[in-house]
Amino acid sequence: MADEPVKYLLDDSEIPTHWYNVVADLPTPPPPPLHPGTHQPVGPDDLAALFPPELIAQEVTTERYVEIPEPVREIYRQWRPSPLFRARRLERVLDTPARIYYKHEGVSPAGSHKTNTAVPQAYYNSINGIRHLTTETGAGQWGTALAFACALFDMQCDVWQVGASFDTKPARRTLIETFGGTVYRSPSLLTEAGKAFEEGHPGSLGIAISEAVEVAAQRDDTKYALGSVLNHVLLHQTVIGEEALLQLRKAGETGADLVVGCAGGGSNFAGLIFPFLREKLAGNQSPRLLAVEPAACPTLTRGEYRYDFGDTAGLTPLLKMYTLGHDFVPSPIHAGGLRYHGMAPLLSHVVHEGLVEATSLHQSECFDAALQFARTEGVVPAPESSHAIAQARRAALSCKETGQEQVIVIGLSGHGLLELGAYESYLADRLIDDALSEEALTSALAAVPAIS
Amino acid sequence: MADEPVKYLLDDSEIPTHWYNVVADLPTPPPPPLHPGTHQPVGPDDLAALFPPELIAQEVTTERYVEIPEPVREIYRQWRPSPLFRARRLERVLDTPARIYYKHEGVSPAGSHKTNTAVPQAYYNSINGIRHLTTETGAGQWGTALAFACALFDMQCDVWQVGASFDTKPARRTLIETFGGTVYRSPSLLTEAGKAFEEGHPGSLGIAISEAVEVAAQRDDTKYALGSVLNHVLLHQTVIGEEALLQLRKAGETGADLVVGCAGGGSNFAGLIFPFLREKLAGNQSPRLLAVEPAACPTLTRGEYRYDFGDTAGLTPLLKMYTLGHDFVPSPIHAGGLRYHGMAPLLSHVVHEGLVEATSLHQSECFDAALQFARTEGVVPAPESSHAIAQARRAALSCKETGQEQVIVIGLSGHGLLELGAYESYLADRLIDDALSEEALTSALAAVPAIS
Repeated sequence: MADEPVKYLLDDSEIPTHWYNVVADLPTPPPPPLHPGTHQPVGPDDLAALFPPELIAQEVTTERYVEIPEPVREIYRQWRPSPLFRARRLERVLDTPARIYYKHEGVSPAGSHKTNTAVPQAYYNSINGIRHLTTETGAGQWGTALAFACALFDMQCDVWQVGASFDTKPARRTLIETFGGTVYRSPSLLTEAGKAFEEGHPGSLGIAISEAVEVAAQRDDTKYALGSVLNHVLLHQTVIGEEALLQLRKAGETGADLVVGCAGGGSNFAGLIFPFLREKLAGNQSPRLLAVEPAACPTLTRGEYRYDFGDTAGLTPLLKMYTLGHDFVPSPIHAGGLRYHGMAPLLSHVVHEGLVEATSLHQSECFDAALQFARTEGVVPAPESSHAIAQARRAALSCKETGQEQVIVIGLSGHGLLELGAYESYLADRLIDDALSEEALTSALAAVPAIS
Repeated sequence: MADEPVKYLLDDSEIPTHWYNVVADLPTPPPPPLHPGTHQPVGPDDLAALFPPELIAQEVTTERYVEIPEPVREIYRQWRPSPLFRARRLERVLDTPARIYYKHEGVSPAGSHKTNTAVPQAYYNSINGIRHLTTETGAGQWGTALAFACALFDMQCDVWQVGASFDTKPARRTLIETFGGTVYRSPSLLTEAGKAFEEGHPGSLGIAISEAVEVAAQRDDTKYALGSVLNHVLLHQTVIGEEALLQLRKAGETGADLVVGCAGGGSNFAGLIFPFLREKLAGNQSPRLLAVEPAACPTLTRGEYRYDFGDTAGLTPLLKMYTLGHDFVPSPIHAGGLRYHGMAPLLSHVVHEGLVEATSLHQSECFDAALQFARTEGVVPAPESSHAIAQARRAALSCKETGQEQVIVIGLSGHGLLELGAYESYLADRLIDDALSEEALTSALAAVPAIS
């Protein structure tokens, strides 16, 4: 016991040199995004108002690997390779024969995986002369990461924070400001998209996206940055899975049996599992790849696979994805990062193709697992990440029944130190734990445009 | 630039095997603690009600090295060796020829150096059949660390949190509870020491210590744990300096010119600098060792070197130390961990002997430096740690004037993610920034007992 390692670190030289593009290896290509007016596939020009050319190229590339620019790798070195931990104390408490690992993205400057894409996005905008980025933030993780990345490249960062989050989590706003960003409560009076709602409206990620996109489209020196959903964002996150594969080998594992992560917009989960999917498609490993959603916002498990808007106002291209309807406002569960009506088209595609699975959990079970994780592993997980932990615990307990020595890999997308209000609610038994009702689902799906 | 490392990690095998006891190398021994009644040196028996025998032995040992028990090293492996970072981006922004390093203790499960001593203290109590530890917490870092350590050894942890901190920092209480601890607002009605104060009193570290000590002394299965000040606590923290010495060598440095840390009770600073002091006394290096205090609680810089109580009620032994008077209540500055009237006797001794220096800073300068640090290095420092950063910045800017390529090592005692309220005050220009007045100092010192 005494000499068994609990963490697997890599050298700076083992930071991936390339991001991995799963599109190159898929049996069928994902359906293209459509222009909201013409319903024709969008081309690079349609995106030029919002994104710099390198990111647009990454959005549509079919190359298997995209080189990570050296200035980005230099910044990655601050916290990457992120550690892979063996959860030995949790295993002991669960009395399971499973070997549980967690890839800890909470060690990043912003406390989550979001920094992996914030840095290259800020970098590519910066070398194109952009001085100003706009974005939205729900839980606040993405706004924090982008504010940090903008500080490094001496750019301004304007963040529209979902109203309900802004009102209840002042520390998140302070953290964004500490990194030099500016925070607006969404819906705001600064945009047409925001003015459409009454003052004090709790907002949604869809509304906040509309506001940030509107502002970016109007100014020459300003572009927009999205923290999830799009192909280039998922691409940047593949450093997680690439490192995890290498670390598992160093831990003496020939592969994983289960790789589990939470899915909100999909980038954390995709970044973790796409390199595993490559190995699976190549026949090298056969891991079960499992996305976990909250029962209150079960996009992959109960949504429909259709073209829908990425935002509430209908400003974005139409994306073929699992959706609950673009004007769906989920109940105020604590995992703000999982309260999105849609799901990354690329992830939706591989789920629809049967390559990747999804399930949903109630948040009370997730917080119970998170507490056990904190008291054994010493890490307070983000409420989002607690979904992956709870599902991994189910699998580990099932191994206890069957005696299987499975290798379980958890994507720990971030720490929960800025979400202690959620833990307080759970500890005080004040947690509201509802699942999405059939009526609400039917009503929300009715707003999805009819596109064959 | 591209290939220059920014972090220096060590293998698990390079975690120190022994704690370093500076007493063995000092030219003169530190004065002993005195019994509060008899004014005679306290013996091990006097401490037996509060501490297990191993900790009492460590408190009085003159051995140079104390072996770290394997179960403690096993837990240390979760986050130790902690990284040493080269602050290259900060150097660039400051345009200094100095090479600035920071030893990052904020990576620990509790977010600060406190875990280094919480784990061995819980361990030694645990192997002595103790099921329950009491303690106080000011900023909350220590209570968090001890709650985490107790969770690992299946012990209960009761924390008296200074009232002002309890009232304004609910997240800290939640974090302690997340790790399984119980939090009481101090002064409480559970103790005689607490009942002496009116309801709603803002409390102080001295009062909270009195309460925790009182409860521990009354119960057989319960002992007390202190997060700073005592010799054994400083001893446990020496892993910081031992690792830093090794990491500096890996970074190609032959030594440090300045090692700077914040000093509240003294354990973080002592843990960092005692191994450097050993090298200095042995003639291997000649670093300047500099403690930084807040101007509002300048114990080393303006206190007197006298015997005084460690707590407010006078329950502890009399300690020869720099003190502002045991009933001194500092103004509510944000670095709660630096609001202590006294200073570790061992650290006081080496300062009095002229081996170590001290200075004080206003908190506004510290927050300004902390903001710059966050925006370059991506780490939001604890308000305590910001004192070390601000002093290091002064030194680095002075190197810019002189052209000296000094090696500066900062002790980053913890992250500030649970102290964002302090950053909010600073950003909103609502920070009260007073220094201790002469009148208040004179009045506080009048309460120090007259002992020759």
